[in-house]
Amino acid sequence: MAERFDRIWHNARLATLREGQPGLGVIEQGVVAARDGRIAFAGPRSDFAADGDAPERIDCAGRWITPGLIDCHTHLVYGGDRAHEFELRLAGASYEEIARAGGGIVSTVAATRAADENELVTGALPRLDALLAEGVTTIEIKSGYGLETATELRQLSAARALGVRRAVSVRTSFLGAHALPVEADGDKERYIDRVCDEMLPAVAQSGLADAVDAFMENIAFSAAQTSRVFAAAKALGLPVKLHADQLSNLGGAALAAEFGALSADHLEHTDEAGAAAMARAETVAVLLPGAFYFIRETQKPPVELFRKHGVKLALATDCNPGSSPLTSLLLTMNMAATLFRMTVDECLAGVTREGARALGVLAETGTLDAGKWCDLAIWDINRPAELVYRMGFNPLHQRVWRGR
Amino acid sequence: MAERFDRIWHNARLATLREGQPGLGVIEQGVVAARDGRIAFAGPRSDFAADGDAPERIDCAGRWITPGLIDCHTHLVYGGDRAHEFELRLAGASYEEIARAGGGIVSTVAATRAADENELVTGALPRLDALLAEGVTTIEIKSGYGLETATELRQLSAARALGVRRAVSVRTSFLGAHALPVEADGDKERYIDRVCDEMLPAVAQSGLADAVDAFMENIAFSAAQTSRVFAAAKALGLPVKLHADQLSNLGGAALAAEFGALSADHLEHTDEAGAAAMARAETVAVLLPGAFYFIRETQKPPVELFRKHGVKLALATDCNPGSSPLTSLLLTMNMAATLFRMTVDECLAGVTREGARALGVLAETGTLDAGKWCDLAIWDINRPAELVYRMGFNPLHQRVWRGR
Ligand SMILES: [Zn+2]
Ligand SMILES: [Zn+2]
Repeated sequence: MAERFDRIWHNARLATLREGQPGLGVIEQGVVAARDGRIAFAGPRSDFAADGDAPERIDCAGRWITPGLIDCHTHLVYGGDRAHEFELRLAGASYEEIARAGGGIVSTVAATRAADENELVTGALPRLDALLAEGVTTIEIKSGYGLETATELRQLSAARALGVRRAVSVRTSFLGAHALPVEADGDKERYIDRVCDEMLPAVAQSGLADAVDAFMENIAFSAAQTSRVFAAAKALGLPVKLHADQLSNLGGAALAAEFGALSADHLEHTDEAGAAAMARAETVAVLLPGAFYFIRETQKPPVELFRKHGVKLALATDCNPGSSPLTSLLLTMNMAATLFRMTVDECLAGVTREGARALGVLAETGTLDAGKWCDLAIWDINRPAELVYRMGFNPLHQRVWRGR
Repeated sequence: MAERFDRIWHNARLATLREGQPGLGVIEQGVVAARDGRIAFAGPRSDFAADGDAPERIDCAGRWITPGLIDCHTHLVYGGDRAHEFELRLAGASYEEIARAGGGIVSTVAATRAADENELVTGALPRLDALLAEGVTTIEIKSGYGLETATELRQLSAARALGVRRAVSVRTSFLGAHALPVEADGDKERYIDRVCDEMLPAVAQSGLADAVDAFMENIAFSAAQTSRVFAAAKALGLPVKLHADQLSNLGGAALAAEFGALSADHLEHTDEAGAAAMARAETVAVLLPGAFYFIRETQKPPVELFRKHGVKLALATDCNPGSSPLTSLLLTMNMAATLFRMTVDECLAGVTREGARALGVLAETGTLDAGKWCDLAIWDINRPAELVYRMGFNPLHQRVWRGR
């Protein structure tokens, strides 16, 4: 009797991104077959069951299929807007003038606190839709603009709601240790007490966060404060990740590795000891070229050191209103290639397999392997390099999430 | 009797970009009315004829209307693809290896010569559609990948055909003096003879070119050679423009000004004498941040000098396969702001009014003024700064070309 699938995509070229394969794991005459939302087969036509059939057979006419894209670091859910601040800065306004005009992260925190969950969801949907239009099937979304329990929970709940409103997998991170709220009056220690003793337990109890993030930097929190947050997260059974070494080298990469973090993100100032520690801990390096570009950073992340030590490299938009108002993973790849000299293969792995690894979901998505969710992006291109090379062009033909 | 229009857009906010107005020439409670494809009225609701009516009345629900966008410098029509060359370079290939693999402008010239007009049109359409999707209503397209008469004419004819296939105004430039073809065997003087004596008369006779462009650079043509091309163009009654001072200061800006060029483009290495000469000649400076970004240039065009001397600043994609595979004027604006520190108002004027000026069509489009073509872009935004601030996001609600 014929083997039955729900859908078959044939006459396709596959970039499987499989581990252990050279380059992109290309299969020229490829077939993907889905059953119950999962990949039942992905491989060469010659290996596909001769009698394999499905109610829907899609002729891809030689198009390329990659894993659905993964944006593993975003701050997609927030209130308000910072376009006016951008405008004032270009017109020569000082930071003080911008603060007086209501700019800076303070303004985003105030607007996020003032927004109800529906407003947060409605505000984030156009940004999410822009990402989905380029083939994103999994997205990470952080809290961190509430800086008090109720708003942090509301941000996380809005993030989860986005995964109901759209056909996309959402992974959430609690980022209470993002910045010090104004009402903390400069007392970082006491605020970290609240993160650990009040916010984290409430978040864990709610089940709204898949991981815990922090921002370790002179303008944010110290190594000791970050360690306290991470220890509390671990005690609650939550994995951790870190905004590390973006503006200075405080040893964030090494600290993330010490806690077995899923990822350390930004990493412009990471040194060789940090890279080596990340490699040993299998902590993924998430590079965020959109923020690098937007804040006109000149110190590049040490891509050569990461390669030398075998640190896995993921890429993400860092979509946020202050330092990376970016809603394109295609452009993110171009920036990583142009600004950081990452190769085409590294860029494509960075928004698929390595993005999945950075989120701890590589067993479920990120490559074209039987058993994983059937999350696909189908592209009108002649070669995968076009996805990295072009700027402001979207050749997505079709997006498939969980088999449809 | 009531004043009749074909269409009325009301309940809109207008960025008229009118000359002599401060900022963007904003009208908060605005109306635009079209008749016979032209703007019959654009102004405040309070000034609009109380009995003005039309078969179509469109409630813009507070959306913003700007002039349709103008991309005043593109190489949109070409054969082949350079994504593989990009990939090889990132993987560490030398220029010699890339040349051996068929890379460089030589490969684009060969592919363009091998393509018939229909193939050139079909290849350019997706790029044109990407630009139109962001509200472009006028585009300039250059030849310059034929480097012999028949192919140059075919490129120009393909460019004109694009204006028939899509609802967009196309302005063409003959760029025979773009590069030296391989068969010229290093003899630039003799090639310029052919440009002046054979190609230019054929182009003028065909009526396929609205202007004549050249590339003045050490790797292209000298000041003397450029002057010969310009003199021949002027004798045939064709306006000129110049790729000037991109990689070095050869005095291109001053030479363009001397010939009363419509525009001088790139200008990273222009000095104060060049800026002053351009101001006197009313030659527009067309800045191309996509190419600056893509080739990782570090020398920025002297925006302060242009401001000081009152040189008008336009922005364009420079869309081309070698140094700017960019099909987004929104991203171009973000790059001009981020990389060149142009203000929001300068960026928006650069892709509307000043783009029109650079093409010599300011009497016909580029601002919301009665009598001009009714070319509009209608945006789902709260303030115009969003068009410059965001990256990889397209808030276009509707594009209107010649009133529909
Ligand atoms: Zn971040
Ligand atoms: Zn050009």
